[in-house]
Amino acid sequence: MLSDVQSRKPEANFKLTRVGVKGIKKPVCIKRKEKVVNLIANIELFVDLPPTRKGSDLSRNAEIIEEIVDSSVRQPSKSLEDLCEKIVEEMLLRHEYASKAEARINSDYFLERCTPGGKKSLEPYKIMAVAIKGRGEAAKKFIGVEVIGMTVCPCAMENIKAKYGEIYSHNQRNVASVFIENDGSIDADEIISIIEKSMSTPTFEILKRGDEMEVVRKAHENPKFVEDVVRDILKEIVSRYKNLPDSTVVIARSESFESIHKHNAFAERITTIGELRK
Amino acid sequence: MLSDVQSRKPEANFKLTRVGVKGIKKPVCIKRKEKVVNLIANIELFVDLPPTRKGSDLSRNAEIIEEIVDSSVRQPSKSLEDLCEKIVEEMLLRHEYASKAEARINSDYFLERCTPGGKKSLEPYKIMAVAIKGRGEAAKKFIGVEVIGMTVCPCAMENIKAKYGEIYSHNQRNVASVFIENDGSIDADEIISIIEKSMSTPTFEILKRGDEMEVVRKAHENPKFVEDVVRDILKEIVSRYKNLPDSTVVIARSESFESIHKHNAFAERITTIGELRK
Amino acid sequence: MLSDVQSRKPEANFKLTRVGVKGIKKPVCIKRKEKVVNLIANIELFVDLPPTRKGSDLSRNAEIIEEIVDSSVRQPSKSLEDLCEKIVEEMLLRHEYASKAEARINSDYFLERCTPGGKKSLEPYKIMAVAIKGRGEAAKKFIGVEVIGMTVCPCAMENIKAKYGEIYSHNQRNVASVFIENDGSIDADEIISIIEKSMSTPTFEILKRGDEMEVVRKAHENPKFVEDVVRDILKEIVSRYKNLPDSTVVIARSESFESIHKHNAFAERITTIGELRK
Amino acid sequence: MLSDVQSRKPEANFKLTRVGVKGIKKPVCIKRKEKVVNLIANIELFVDLPPTRKGSDLSRNAEIIEEIVDSSVRQPSKSLEDLCEKIVEEMLLRHEYASKAEARINSDYFLERCTPGGKKSLEPYKIMAVAIKGRGEAAKKFIGVEVIGMTVCPCAMENIKAKYGEIYSHNQRNVASVFIENDGSIDADEIISIIEKSMSTPTFEILKRGDEMEVVRKAHENPKFVEDVVRDILKEIVSRYKNLPDSTVVIARSESFESIHKHNAFAERITTIGELRK
Ligand SMILES: [Zn+2]
Ligand SMILES: [Zn+2]
Ligand SMILES: [Zn+2]
Ligand SMILES: [Zn+2]
Repeated sequence: MLSDVQSRKPEANFKLTRVGVKGIKKPVCIKRKEKVVNLIANIELFVDLPPTRKGSDLSRNAEIIEEIVDSSVRQPSKSLEDLCEKIVEEMLLRHEYASKAEARINSDYFLERCTPGGKKSLEPYKIMAVAIKGRGEAAKKFIGVEVIGMTVCPCAMENIKAKYGEIYSHNQRNVASVFIENDGSIDADEIISIIEKSMSTPTFEILKRGDEMEVVRKAHENPKFVEDVVRDILKEIVSRYKNLPDSTVVIARSESFESIHKHNAFAERITTIGELRK
Repeated sequence: MLSDVQSRKPEANFKLTRVGVKGIKKPVCIKRKEKVVNLIANIELFVDLPPTRKGSDLSRNAEIIEEIVDSSVRQPSKSLEDLCEKIVEEMLLRHEYASKAEARINSDYFLERCTPGGKKSLEPYKIMAVAIKGRGEAAKKFIGVEVIGMTVCPCAMENIKAKYGEIYSHNQRNVASVFIENDGSIDADEIISIIEKSMSTPTFEILKRGDEMEVVRKAHENPKFVEDVVRDILKEIVSRYKNLPDSTVVIARSESFESIHKHNAFAERITTIGELRK
Repeated sequence: MLSDVQSRKPEANFKLTRVGVKGIKKPVCIKRKEKVVNLIANIELFVDLPPTRKGSDLSRNAEIIEEIVDSSVRQPSKSLEDLCEKIVEEMLLRHEYASKAEARINSDYFLERCTPGGKKSLEPYKIMAVAIKGRGEAAKKFIGVEVIGMTVCPCAMENIKAKYGEIYSHNQRNVASVFIENDGSIDADEIISIIEKSMSTPTFEILKRGDEMEVVRKAHENPKFVEDVVRDILKEIVSRYKNLPDSTVVIARSESFESIHKHNAFAERITTIGELRK
Repeated sequence: MLSDVQSRKPEANFKLTRVGVKGIKKPVCIKRKEKVVNLIANIELFVDLPPTRKGSDLSRNAEIIEEIVDSSVRQPSKSLEDLCEKIVEEMLLRHEYASKAEARINSDYFLERCTPGGKKSLEPYKIMAVAIKGRGEAAKKFIGVEVIGMTVCPCAMENIKAKYGEIYSHNQRNVASVFIENDGSIDADEIISIIEKSMSTPTFEILKRGDEMEVVRKAHENPKFVEDVVRDILKEIVSRYKNLPDSTVVIARSESFESIHKHNAFAERITTIGELRK
C-alpha cells in the first residue's frame, strides 16, 4: 500500500489559488461545421487546494487529458471551449477536495483565405479556450484568437502628405487578439474575421506581384493606430453580438512591431459588453 | 506646423485601458545600500486613453525613458520601484489627457552567495517593479523577484523508502516568484532570501564535488512539493512583515521542471496579506 | 505588365548563400506505417542567388508550400524528409536561376509509450527534416529528433554513497537530440527509441505512484552524465545501422537542466559514421 | 577523499566535440575607448573530450567565469572577444585533457545615436564574441553584432508607382547581423554603423513628428530587399577593411518581419573576405 503524501495536512495551512500542470502537449480533434480539425493543444489544468491538504494529485490531470485526447478522436467536441468544459467537469469529479477547476488550451489554427486577386491561401492563427468551473456552478467559458495583420500609421501619412504631397507612411506587422466570455453564441472564426477587418489590411502568406500591390494599396487607404484597431474590434463586437449579456467579459489588444522603432506600440481594452454598450 | 492626428476624435468612441510601448531596453542604475547596481531594464509604459482622443502620443514615453536613464546615472533611485514611480509621475504630467499611468520594468539581477563549503558565487535572479498612479492619487508600487532553486519530491521519496529502504527521489529545477505591493518597507533582496529558504535547497553556479554533495544532501533532507514552496514563502512573509497593511496584494508562485515528466508542476496563491493573517 | 524588380542586376554583385522564407506554419500529413499523422509544420525554404540577380522571387516558395500542403492531404508522403525532397525538387524548377535549394521543416510529434506499470501514455517529441539539393544532383536528406528524458548524476551519487551510505543524487530533465543524414534506411521512431534508451530513464506524462517509484528507481540504477548520453546514442547508432555509408553525417547532443545549478550542462558530437567506426 | 568519476574511462569510447556549460549569466565590464561598459553576459563554454575520459569537470568552467567576472571589474578587457580569449586560455590550463576550448558570449549593448532632427537617443543592439583555441595554437576570435532597422520593398514601390503614380510600398522591421573573424583590427561599433547604413534607414527609439517624417522619407528614397541589405553590408566590409587576410570568415544576414505576410524574408551569405574580393 503506497503512502498518499499529498492528502496529509501541510505545515503552513494556507489554501492555494491554483495547483496543477503546465506545458502538456497533445494532439486533439474538434469538429467545426462538419469539418474535423486537428490541433496540437498546449494544455494547462489547475484546481484550487484547501488549507488542509498538502498537495494536489497531479497525475489525475494527466489521466484526464489522456482520456480526453482519445475521446476527442472518437467523438470530437464542437469547439475547444467545449473540450475545456468537459475537462473541468471531470477535474471536479476526480479532485474531490477542490472547489474550482480551470482548463486552458491554446493551439495553432488555420483558415482558408482569398487574396484580392482571388488566390487561395491557408493562413495561420492562434486560438485559445478557457473553462472555469466552481463546484455546483455552471462553467464559465472563454475563447481567444490571435491574428497577424498590418497597420499603416495615420500620423506620419498625414504629415508627409501635407509637407511632401505624397501618401507614404510607415507600416508594420500587427498582432491583435480578442479574449471573450462565450455563452455558446460566438464562433472563433467570426472573431478572427472581425479582427482582420479592423486592421489596415489582413495579410496573406501568398502574394504575387499584382496581389501585393493591392494589399499595400488597401492598407494605405485605411491607416490605423493600434488604438484604432482595438476600438474598431470593440465596435464590431458590440454591433454584431446584440444578445450577449451585459456581464460578458471582453479583452481586445493590438501590438505593432513598429518599423520605425525597435520597440512595439500597444493598446488594450479590458471591459464588459455592458460597459461598451453605455 | 505638423498635424496632431492623435488628438483628433476617434470614430469609435471607446476609452482604452492601456496604450503605450513595450519592449524598450535601456541600461539603468539604482543605488542599493550604498552600492550602485547596473541593470539592463526591459520597460513597458502605459496610460489610459479617454474616448474623445484618437491616439496617445507615444513619443512622450520614449522621451521620459531617455531622460530617466540619464538621470539614473547621475542620481540613481534607491530601488527599481522608486524609478517606476518617478516615471509614472512624469507620464501624468506629459499625457495631460490620461487619468492613470503604469510603468513596468524587469531586469536580470545578481547577488553574491556562499556555498555550503564557503565558496563565493554570484547568482542570477530576475527583479521586477511596477508603479501605477491615478491622477491626484498616490502611486501604488509593487516589486517582484524570480528565483531558481531545487525541489525534491516528498511523495516518491516516502514510497521508495517504504518499499526499498532507500531515500532517493526525483528532484528538479524550480522557478519560484513573489510579486508584492510595496509601501517602501520591503527589500527585494530579502524576498529573494525568503524564496531560497522555501525550496528544498537554493542552487549555486559553482559547486566543487564536496559542495555538490552537501547541496544534494540538504535537498533530500528537505523534500518539497511546489505547493510547499508557495506556502512556506507565504508563511515567512506573514511572519516577517508584521507592519504591512492588510490590503497588501501578494502573489507567490512555484513551477517545477519535473524530471520525471515532460511537463511542469505549478502552484500559485493570489491574495492579500490580510487574508493570510486570518 | 508589372516590373520584375527581382530579376534586375544588383549594385553590389555578390552571390548569396541562402535567400528565402522563415516561419511559415502549415498543417501537413505524412503517412507512417499505414497511419496518417497530422503535423503542424514550421517551414524554412532557401535557394542560393547568383551575383547577377537582385532578388529571389519569394512568392514562389509560398506557392510551392501551399500546393504541397494540399497534396499532402490527398497523397501523404511517407516521411517528413520525403516531403522536403519533393519541395526542393519543385524549388529548383521554379527558381531557374538557383543552383541549390534547401527545405527545413520541424514539428511537434507524438508516440504512444507504456509506463513500467503498463499504463499507456502519448508522449511528445520534436521531429525535423531537411533536404538539400544541388541542380543536377540527388537530394541529401537528413532527419532530426528531439527527446526529453531524465539524467541522474553519477558523480554526486558515488560520493554520497561513499560518505553517507545512501544512493541519492541530483537528477533533472534532459533534452537530447540526433540529427542524421538519411539515405532512406532510418526511421525517426527508431532514433527516438535509441535516445530514450540512452538516458537514465525515459519520462512519461502519466505516472501513478507505483509507476513514479519505478521510473525513479530505474533512473538511479542507471546514472548518466550528458557525455554518457551522447556516447551511448552514438554506440547504438553505429551498432544498429551497419549499412549506412561512412560519409553519413551524424550529430548527437544532450543538454541537462541541472537541478543543482541555474545553468545547463551540454555535450555534443559532430561527426560521420565512418569516424565513429574507426 | 572524493571520487573523481569524470576521469574514469567511459564504456563507449568516442571522443566528444563539445562538452561544457550553457546559459550562465554574469555582469561583466569591458573598456571601450576609455569608457567602461557594463554588460550582462550570456556565456557558453566548451572543451572537447578525449575518448579515454568519461566526463569534463564542468565546475572548472564556473570557477573560471567567476574569476573573470571579478577581474573584469578590476581590470576590464578592451573588448568582449579579448575577454573570450582570456577565458579559453584559462580553460586549456585547467582542462588538461582537452585539445580545444571555445567561449561564446553575447549581450545587449547600447550606443548613442542622433535622429535626423538632432535629438539624442540611446539605441539597443546585440553584440557577440567567440574565441576558439587549439592547444599550442593562437586563439581565433570572432565578433558578431545584431542591429534592428527598417526596409522598404523596392518591388511593390515600383509597381505601385507605375500603376497609381504614388511611391508608397510595404515597409517593416528588419534584423540584420554580421559575424566576422577578428584579428584585432575590427571594432564592433563600426560594424554596427555599416549595418545601419545598409538598411533603408536605421530606426530610433525616440522620434517626434518631424523626425518620424524624415526617417520614413529617407527609407522610401532608399528601398531595399533583404538581399540588398546583405550585399551592401558585404560591399562596405570589403571596401573598408583592406588589410584583413583573405581567410577571414564573414557571415552577413538580414531578416525582414514582412508587414504584408505572417512569415519572414531572409537572406544570408557565409563566406570569406578572400571570396568576396574575387
Ligand atoms: Zn507613426
Ligand atoms: Zn513526485
Ligand atoms: Zn553532478
Ligand atoms: Zn514586397
